[in-house]
Amino acid sequence: MLQGREGLLLVVSGPSGAGKGTICQIVRENLQNLGYSVSVTTRKPREGEVNGVHYFFKTVEEVHKMIAEEQFLEYAEVFGNYYGTPKDFVFSQLKEGKDVLLEIDVQGALQVKKRFPRGVFVFIAPPSLEELSKRLYNRGTDSEQVIQKRLAGAKKELLLAKEYDYLIINDIAQDAAMRVLSLLNGERSRTERNISFIEKICREE
Amino acid sequence: MLQGREGLLLVVSGPSGAGKGTICQIVRENLQNLGYSVSVTTRKPREGEVNGVHYFFKTVEEVHKMIAEEQFLEYAEVFGNYYGTPKDFVFSQLKEGKDVLLEIDVQGALQVKKRFPRGVFVFIAPPSLEELSKRLYNRGTDSEQVIQKRLAGAKKELLLAKEYDYLIINDIAQDAAMRVLSLLNGERSRTERNISFIEKICREE
Repeated sequence: MLQGREGLLLVVSGPSGAGKGTICQIVRENLQNLGYSVSVTTRKPREGEVNGVHYFFKTVEEVHKMIAEEQFLEYAEVFGNYYGTPKDFVFSQLKEGKDVLLEIDVQGALQVKKRFPRGVFVFIAPPSLEELSKRLYNRGTDSEQVIQKRLAGAKKELLLAKEYDYLIINDIAQDAAMRVLSLLNGERSRTERNISFIEKICREE
Repeated sequence: MLQGREGLLLVVSGPSGAGKGTICQIVRENLQNLGYSVSVTTRKPREGEVNGVHYFFKTVEEVHKMIAEEQFLEYAEVFGNYYGTPKDFVFSQLKEGKDVLLEIDVQGALQVKKRFPRGVFVFIAPPSLEELSKRLYNRGTDSEQVIQKRLAGAKKELLLAKEYDYLIINDIAQDAAMRVLSLLNGERSRTERNISFIEKICREE
């Protein structure tokens, strides 16, 4: 293959309830040779969880050291535990030519963008706030109070969509996922990802 | 359709012999609702050529006036005749939601980019200079001298590829055309083309 030798880091993000989980699942089913990311966490392993498979389990001290050494693409503290995406693991797969899909929240995605701007940043938006509200209620997993908090958060997060390369409106998940696959294909042809080819053929003769 | 209401201006360019003609033909066959561009020229109509269909036939004075009024997306003087792409004709189709495909030389494409940066600029490159040379000889339409001139020109033009959004290496025309169609689909999802949607849903309620 002539084009796109380095894998692409595809970062899919958006408000809770926009449907990024469903879309990412369809995207994964349609991509061959997809790499993956294993997160670092300081929380205790649950039964059956394997270090290096489900998570890299680390101590708080180890994570502090990783933060200081800028070893994370993004990290956050949630309910007293750290969660983070280690650079090395992701980068080694990109170098092998594998694409890596990160499905993360809006704050995390913007951290990744700062640290790895040549990633492909995709924002998944609901077709309307009304529809978002309906989805959150239908999910039936959150209390009224949590849903109201999520909706307020979503409105703020929607304003961050402009920081992303692509904006996908998730009306029908299957269609939205196809748009993600298309843009990923398009990205492989972007000049900045292929310019070394021009340098190469101009050195011919 | 929620996304991409304005049509896209797809500008396909590259050195002579890179194969942009064949690629554009395949792209056209695969795109529905594609608009088109009619060039302005000062050369005399040939038999059967219809004003407004094959060209807009204009006088030199009219073209000078159009240049002064910045009515061209790009223009050039070739063997004493002017040829140009009028803005109005293209823009009215984009507004109707039709994509317009311009197949033009490298100089013309860079003029369009200056005047309409939100076009999608695609550079078609040969897989190697050797292959480009082979194609020019096989075409059998040019003298040795003209071919050498084209090859020298191609080397210079290849260095301008970095000004384009996308770089397509034309190894097999069918595959290259499919890559053009993919990137066009991807472009429809770019944030800057859809940001008005976010503004709209944030105004809800």
